[in-house]
Amino acid sequence: MIGRKLTERLTRDGRLGKREISRLTLHDVVTPQGGTTPFPVEIKTGDFVGADAAAALVAGKPDVIFHLAAVVSGEAEADFEKGYRINLDGTRHLLEAIRAIGGGYRPRVVFSSSIAVYGAPFPASIGDEFLSAPLTSYGTQKAICELLLTDYTRRGFIDGIGIRLPTICVRPGLPNKAASGFFSNIIREPLAGKEAILPVNEAVRHWHASPRSAIGFLTHAAALESELIGPRRNFNMPGLSVTVEEQLAALKSVAGATVVARIRREPDATIAGIVSNWPQNFDARRAIALGFTAAEKTFADIIRIHIDDELHGAFVH
Amino acid sequence: MIGRKLTERLTRDGRLGKREISRLTLHDVVTPQGGTTPFPVEIKTGDFVGADAAAALVAGKPDVIFHLAAVVSGEAEADFEKGYRINLDGTRHLLEAIRAIGGGYRPRVVFSSSIAVYGAPFPASIGDEFLSAPLTSYGTQKAICELLLTDYTRRGFIDGIGIRLPTICVRPGLPNKAASGFFSNIIREPLAGKEAILPVNEAVRHWHASPRSAIGFLTHAAALESELIGPRRNFNMPGLSVTVEEQLAALKSVAGATVVARIRREPDATIAGIVSNWPQNFDARRAIALGFTAAEKTFADIIRIHIDDELHGAFVH
Repeated sequence: MIGRKLTERLTRDGRLGKREISRLTLHDVVTPQGGTTPFPVEIKTGDFVGADAAAALVAGKPDVIFHLAAVVSGEAEADFEKGYRINLDGTRHLLEAIRAIGGGYRPRVVFSSSIAVYGAPFPASIGDEFLSAPLTSYGTQKAICELLLTDYTRRGFIDGIGIRLPTICVRPGLPNKAASGFFSNIIREPLAGKEAILPVNEAVRHWHASPRSAIGFLTHAAALESELIGPRRNFNMPGLSVTVEEQLAALKSVAGATVVARIRREPDATIAGIVSNWPQNFDARRAIALGFTAAEKTFADIIRIHIDDELHGAFVH
Repeated sequence: MIGRKLTERLTRDGRLGKREISRLTLHDVVTPQGGTTPFPVEIKTGDFVGADAAAALVAGKPDVIFHLAAVVSGEAEADFEKGYRINLDGTRHLLEAIRAIGGGYRPRVVFSSSIAVYGAPFPASIGDEFLSAPLTSYGTQKAICELLLTDYTRRGFIDGIGIRLPTICVRPGLPNKAASGFFSNIIREPLAGKEAILPVNEAVRHWHASPRSAIGFLTHAAALESELIGPRRNFNMPGLSVTVEEQLAALKSVAGATVVARIRREPDATIAGIVSNWPQNFDARRAIALGFTAAEKTFADIIRIHIDDELHGAFVH
C-alpha cells in the first residue's frame, strides 16, 4: 500500500526535493502496477532474499533507495525463519550489495522502520532516546536494521535514514485481521456503508498518521541533506495520539451519527491484550526540527484525507 | 582474559549457584589452557564462524553457555567484514544451533555485551532505558546480539541474559594499545616498577570494574532464575565512575608516591578524542536489584584486587 502510494506520488511530482527523477525501478514480491509515467520505470519481481537479487537491484546505482520491503508483524511472529530471512537477511543483502559497488557510491537509503521497535513498559511520551526493547520478532528485525543502517552510514557505505511510521490510518482496502486493523476498519467501513467491529474499549489510545503523511515523510527523508540528519539516523515520525473515543467523535463530526451507528462493539480480549502493550504517544521533536510535517492536525483531518484520497470526496451517508 | 579467569573460578568453585558442574567445554580461537579440574573438560579450537562448528559445540546440550567470543573493538573497526562475520554471524549460528536442537532444550546463555552499545551524547548517568546508539561497528554488533538474545528468549529458544561489562580495570598482561588501555596501564605498570604513559587529562571520567567483579557478574548471571530477569534481558552492570585524578590518588594511597611518580604525562589528542565520546557514569539499579554486586567499593579496592589476584600480594615500591 505504501509502495503503491509512494510510486503514485513520485510519478505525479516527477521530482524528489530539488532533483528531477530520471528513472524508477520497482521491486516487489508481486508484480507492481505500472502506469503512465514521465520517466522510465523498470519492474522487477522477487522475494528479496538472495545476495544476487540485491546486487542486480542496485547495479544501476540509483541515487535514492526506498526500502519498504518486509514480512509484516503477524507473519514474522508466525514464521520465525521467514521473518529473519526477509526482514534481516534481505536488508543485509541490500546493504552489502551497495557496499560491494564501492568507488564512492553512497546512495540515500530511506528505510521504513516501525514503532514496533519499542516495547512496553513505556514512558508517557516516547522520545528518540528511549531504548528499543521490541516485544515481537518483527520489531526486533526492524531495530536490528536500524542499527545496521546507522553503522553502514557511519562507515560511509550508504547515506541512510530510518523513519518510524505511526500506525497508518485510514488504511485503504479490505478489512484486515491484523490486531491494529480495527483502528482503520471503524472509519473506512462505516464510510462505505458497511458495518465495522470495535473490539476494544473506547479509552484505548494509539499513535496515527494518514497514508498521505507517510508518503510525505518518505519523500522528505529522501531529499534531506545528510549533514542535517546527524549521527543518529532513525527518527520517530510526527503523529496524532488519539483515543478510540476521539476517533469516533471525529467520525461523527465529519460524517454524522448515522455513519458512526454502523460500528458494533464486540469486545475481543486477545486484541485488547495485544493493544494494551502498544505505545500511545511519542515525542517527535527531532523529526519536526528536520522539517517532517504531518498532513493532518486532527483526527478529523485524517478522515477527510481518506474521503478525498480514496473515496473521491464522497461517502455513504 | 575473562574466559581464562572464568574457567579458573568455575574450576575452583565446582558449581554454579546451586548446581554442581559436571562437565565443561571450552572453545576459543587459541587452544585454551587446561589444568587440574574436579570435572571433565573438553577443549575445542576454532574461529566460531560456521554453522557446523556451532552445532557441534552445543550438541551435548550444555545447561549453561557463556558466550564471550568476539573480535574486539579496534579489530571490528579495522576489518568491517570480519567483525560482522564473527560478532554477529557467529552469535546467530550459536543461537540457531541451539534452536535447531528443539525438544524443549532451552539453555541459559550468558552473553558478555559491552557499554559500547551506547554512543554520545549521553545523559549524566546512563540508565537501562537509554537508547543503544553505538558509534562503532563493535558496539553495533553487540547491540544487535542483545536484540537477538531477547527475541530468542521471548520465543522460548534460549534463556538468555546479556550483561554490559564496565571497562575492566586493572587488566592483567602486557600494555595494550587499545584506546582504553591506559586506564589499566597507569596502575599495572607502576606497580610492576615500570613507567606508564598517561595520554589524557586527569579530569577524564570513566566506568570501571575489576576482573574479579566481571567474573562474579558472569557466574551470578548464569545462576539467576529466569522469571526474576523479566522480558528485558540486557543489563548495565554495577561499576565505579572515577576520574583519572581519582585513580592516581587511589594509587598513591595504596602504593605510595614513588609508584605514582612512574607515570609520565604524554598527551595524545587522538586518544583524548576517542575517550571523550565514552560514557562516564551508569545507573545499574536493575542489575543491583537482581543481586549483581561488584567486588569493590572504591578504586583503591580495584588496585588491591589487582595486587592480590595478579601480583601475589606484592608490588615494586
